[in-house]
Amino acid sequence: MGMNNNRVEHFEYCHNQQSQTIIKIQHPDDITIMPPPMEVHKVELPPKRTTLHKLRQRLSEIFFPDDPFYRFKNQTWFMKFILGLQYLFPIFQWGPQYNFRLLRSDAISGLTIASLAIPQGISYAKLANLPPIIGLYSSFVPPLIYSLLGSSRHLGVGPVSIASLVMGSMLSESVSFTQDPILYLKLAFTATFFAGLFQASLGLLRLGFVIDFLSKATLVGFMAGAAVIVSLQQLKGLLGIVHFTTKMQIIPVLASVFKQRDEWSWQTILLGFSFLAFLLATRHISLKKPKLFWVSAAAPLTSVIVSTILVFLLRNKAHNIAIIGNLPKGLNPPSTNMLYFNGPFLALAIKTGIVTGILSLTEGIAVGRTFAALKNYQVDGNKEMMAIGLMNIAGSCSSCYVTTGSFSRSAVNYNAGAQTAVSNIIMAAAVLVTLLFLMPLFYHTPNVVLAAIIITAVIGLIDYQAAFKLWKVDKLDFLACLCSFFGVLFISVPLGLGIAVSISVFKILLHVSRPNTVVLGNIPGTQIFHNVNQYKEAARVPSFLILGVESPIYFANSTYLQERILRWVREEEERIKENNESSLKCIILDMTAVTAIDTSGLDTLCELRKMMEKRLLKLVLANPVGNVMEKLHQSKILDSFGLNGVYLTVGEAVADISSSWKAQP
Amino acid sequence: MGMNNNRVEHFEYCHNQQSQTIIKIQHPDDITIMPPPMEVHKVELPPKRTTLHKLRQRLSEIFFPDDPFYRFKNQTWFMKFILGLQYLFPIFQWGPQYNFRLLRSDAISGLTIASLAIPQGISYAKLANLPPIIGLYSSFVPPLIYSLLGSSRHLGVGPVSIASLVMGSMLSESVSFTQDPILYLKLAFTATFFAGLFQASLGLLRLGFVIDFLSKATLVGFMAGAAVIVSLQQLKGLLGIVHFTTKMQIIPVLASVFKQRDEWSWQTILLGFSFLAFLLATRHISLKKPKLFWVSAAAPLTSVIVSTILVFLLRNKAHNIAIIGNLPKGLNPPSTNMLYFNGPFLALAIKTGIVTGILSLTEGIAVGRTFAALKNYQVDGNKEMMAIGLMNIAGSCSSCYVTTGSFSRSAVNYNAGAQTAVSNIIMAAAVLVTLLFLMPLFYHTPNVVLAAIIITAVIGLIDYQAAFKLWKVDKLDFLACLCSFFGVLFISVPLGLGIAVSISVFKILLHVSRPNTVVLGNIPGTQIFHNVNQYKEAARVPSFLILGVESPIYFANSTYLQERILRWVREEEERIKENNESSLKCIILDMTAVTAIDTSGLDTLCELRKMMEKRLLKLVLANPVGNVMEKLHQSKILDSFGLNGVYLTVGEAVADISSSWKAQP
Repeated sequence: MGMNNNRVEHFEYCHNQQSQTIIKIQHPDDITIMPPPMEVHKVELPPKRTTLHKLRQRLSEIFFPDDPFYRFKNQTWFMKFILGLQYLFPIFQWGPQYNFRLLRSDAISGLTIASLAIPQGISYAKLANLPPIIGLYSSFVPPLIYSLLGSSRHLGVGPVSIASLVMGSMLSESVSFTQDPILYLKLAFTATFFAGLFQASLGLLRLGFVIDFLSKATLVGFMAGAAVIVSLQQLKGLLGIVHFTTKMQIIPVLASVFKQRDEWSWQTILLGFSFLAFLLATRHISLKKPKLFWVSAAAPLTSVIVSTILVFLLRNKAHNIAIIGNLPKGLNPPSTNMLYFNGPFLALAIKTGIVTGILSLTEGIAVGRTFAALKNYQVDGNKEMMAIGLMNIAGSCSSCYVTTGSFSRSAVNYNAGAQTAVSNIIMAAAVLVTLLFLMPLFYHTPNVVLAAIIITAVIGLIDYQAAFKLWKVDKLDFLACLCSFFGVLFISVPLGLGIAVSISVFKILLHVSRPNTVVLGNIPGTQIFHNVNQYKEAARVPSFLILGVESPIYFANSTYLQERILRWVREEEERIKENNESSLKCIILDMTAVTAIDTSGLDTLCELRKMMEKRLLKLVLANPVGNVMEKLHQSKILDSFGLNGVYLTVGEAVADISSSWKAQP
Repeated sequence: MGMNNNRVEHFEYCHNQQSQTIIKIQHPDDITIMPPPMEVHKVELPPKRTTLHKLRQRLSEIFFPDDPFYRFKNQTWFMKFILGLQYLFPIFQWGPQYNFRLLRSDAISGLTIASLAIPQGISYAKLANLPPIIGLYSSFVPPLIYSLLGSSRHLGVGPVSIASLVMGSMLSESVSFTQDPILYLKLAFTATFFAGLFQASLGLLRLGFVIDFLSKATLVGFMAGAAVIVSLQQLKGLLGIVHFTTKMQIIPVLASVFKQRDEWSWQTILLGFSFLAFLLATRHISLKKPKLFWVSAAAPLTSVIVSTILVFLLRNKAHNIAIIGNLPKGLNPPSTNMLYFNGPFLALAIKTGIVTGILSLTEGIAVGRTFAALKNYQVDGNKEMMAIGLMNIAGSCSSCYVTTGSFSRSAVNYNAGAQTAVSNIIMAAAVLVTLLFLMPLFYHTPNVVLAAIIITAVIGLIDYQAAFKLWKVDKLDFLACLCSFFGVLFISVPLGLGIAVSISVFKILLHVSRPNTVVLGNIPGTQIFHNVNQYKEAARVPSFLILGVESPIYFANSTYLQERILRWVREEEERIKENNESSLKCIILDMTAVTAIDTSGLDTLCELRKMMEKRLLKLVLANPVGNVMEKLHQSKILDSFGLNGVYLTVGEAVADISSSWKAQP
């Protein structure tokens, strides 16, 4: 079917478009005289709803997209109570079916993650500039709370590197732990309290989508940057440096490393790098053979034990190897009296709480979802937020700092065969025993081995493969990733994060304010109209310019779209002149992808219609979706478009309009 | 066609879907045995382009959507030079064709707007707390510059109420004109300079879309709020109050009006309200009969003349009527030495410049576009920005404050028959004569008449009909409008504006993070699939769940979409169970409206696919657009979807998949 330019071929075009054979049967002889009877479908309005009803529906889509209460429908009051209890405390859901077989699996995995949790707890607390014992406290109370409230069955709960790092860096910029340990502790617990409050309120207010604005691209860059900073900071422990910067940017950290070269201690370096090599080797083994996950899981505790024994044996010879020293025995002391609700540092505590809260929430939820997907169950984001939030609030009252679901611990938990949250209870019990009886054993544990553990843990956060994939698939995502990476390295953790989020939001706004418009052509022999750029076979329909608008029409893009459409018309007219085709008569806007329109968009359509009329061009709309149709109707713009201004499909519009030209030449 | 649930009816369904008659001819007897031969179109990738090419295209879409240089293509160097000159100075475009007939029209309209510009200039300068003469200066130099550079033929250039108000309110919060007039003047000129610089750079960097973020809804609310504040502030002049607040919020202004009741002067009130009534009456007449536009155009000058004569005659009797007093004769003095580039108030000047710059730009461009649309020519937004910016930079060096295209003046200009920018030159000439010779005549002009002129001018900014239309068509737009209205009234002008812009942006983000998903059904007898909610006749296809995703899939909504789609599947399965239909086997995602996808979106699709596979459900995509197809391809996700995972249309997917079920039961 050629794209020629006289009336008869017009008609032939639309005759080909529709089912040729129907006509052959119905009008076997007047095929060249009459256009085929085209059934034009009316574009309907969605059923009428009141504003209140629309508002309610919109709000329920915003806040309850997952319809969390669907189980409660059509149930007796007693069942509703039971379901409610199960909803609030998932333990009631799986508790009744709990049996010895499950317990055995949970006990094994619980003990495995405890062996990881104890050295990690001590190390991460040091990362946050907190006393090591706080890390152990944080591995005891929060996992217990989570096992009651959480809906993930595999999440291993405890302190995590990113949140520890961020808390340490944000608090240390204003308060030094060495100078004022009590104030620092107070601020840490208060920040934890606000983190929990913030997390729980996000969950309660069902504003979970806030964390969605930390895109994966942003997080890849952020985590890699944080990992680099943390690793470099560990050079303090690894090289045995005593005087070290508290700053978190790469330049002062590196300067600190090389300025204090006289403090480097070869014994520490030897010990540190040997254990680092051991830990990295075990990590490599477990990565290569996932079945050997226990190799890397057991390595940190092994390192701690071996290094402690070594240092104990060499205690008279190697004085300059820094050790943890005395740790108090006993359970978490209450810390409600340490919460700090007024004074000059309150704003700092709140800010730290919100930043660490968001970050730990993002990690916890992502980890929970990852393992839920592997076992094909679902984790309710908003409920998880409440669980993590309450666990942090409880933690802040019992000498714990920010905790969440940790990726490394959950992976070990999952691989060790955890079945329910009971593995967290087992882990907490193991930590309890440690706290009550084994604390003196850590006296000789060298700090250097903790540095090696931290480096091994954070090195996994540098996901260069993901970054490479971003580069390959989406350059703008890669840019966001780079910005958050360098922002964290050179500026600061919260600012780097802020820049990355702004870039992600800017990307959305850019896409909204400069949407695509494409020219559609007909795929011969079908009623399908498609982008002529993508489909070589798609052919332009003579006298028509069919434009697909690929975005909602908003205030932010209505001016652009108007100009862009006028340019398409101008270019089409120039093209037609060059090729000597039949002149342009009608513009069809395919509104399929225009999923929303606002008052500025409506004005633009009206304006375009008027401008086209002045140029004697017809402008019609094809396939407006429900709510766009509703707004077109409410704003009375349809009146100006007349009866035949809106069609259900592009095909029907083309056929109907060309047959009307045929009828009234 | 019923929605029953056995294989045969499946087949019948898809047989009905395609052109029944074709089959009747081709296979007249095996119609119930074989599905019709379905042609499945391959989904194609857009032509391969390099990253650089894509980047260039994307950047040209962002910065040069209107392709401003298209005229320059295929031209000789000399023509390019001429075109360039015409591009920079539109006066060269229409200059050569200028003739006496056009001059006559321009002279009439120029004199008409001059009669409006002189009282307005004096009044608006007072609104900005500047000496009245600055308003006249500002009606002389900027119109001359604009007539050389501007591309609008009807824009009447001069000071405007909103920018004057904002400048006055922002500067007065830190510096008082009465206490330090020189500093205040310096800051005003400096702010004007930065406003111009900002406007010109927006134009030069082609970032014009920044002003698009002031949506119409926001502006309606903002202007109404500003008008209310300004009108209330004019009560100072109208009631003859001497001591008045410099604050701009409604509460201190009202308090000021009623506290200073002893300063009310009945002579002033009588004079003021008479002229206000006169001005409002003329405005009403012109609104009712647009042909009588000159009635309201001439009214301000008439009021000024009549009131001046009145006060002059009563000069011995009515002492407490405040008058303008002495105005210096002569042309604009240069003010480059008044620009203030260092010192404590620089930040204030820059901030004021940017806010007034954005606001005046928005007004100028909107007015220019409005009148261009009426005469069917186009105004180049970025070029206009440069013209307005350069005019303000020039203004700041010649004792002018912020100017732009004024709506009232342009309307009068248009109605008086202006043909080209020469009417601005005529107006400037009239202002020149006034400045040189007529200044002493304004000595006895009472301030109260200026207040009445301002009130009449700003009352037109309260567009309650537009607000009502917003309420009717789009509740969220109405909310943005209300917020900017009350924000301006109760908080402050820039903050009110900031709140309103945030709401508009939030609305975009909300729409992106909670997009619509709709269930599609088949419209019997066609290949059209449409929202079953909107089209009652659209029928669900048994064993299929066809979902239309009405938004790009981004990091900000990928989690939501995943949950929402899982909920659709769950609900569909429950519905099927209730109605005892054939079980769900395949989910088709209609990607027509998914105009973009990022790496998070790709992961979500992959994840969904895996989850569905675990439930033994097939997930296929229909009609991905060009760049989505490209990304699907690059990320190798298509490999996991297999050969038949992507279809060109929903109809083809349904037909092909059901025929494959038919083939392999």
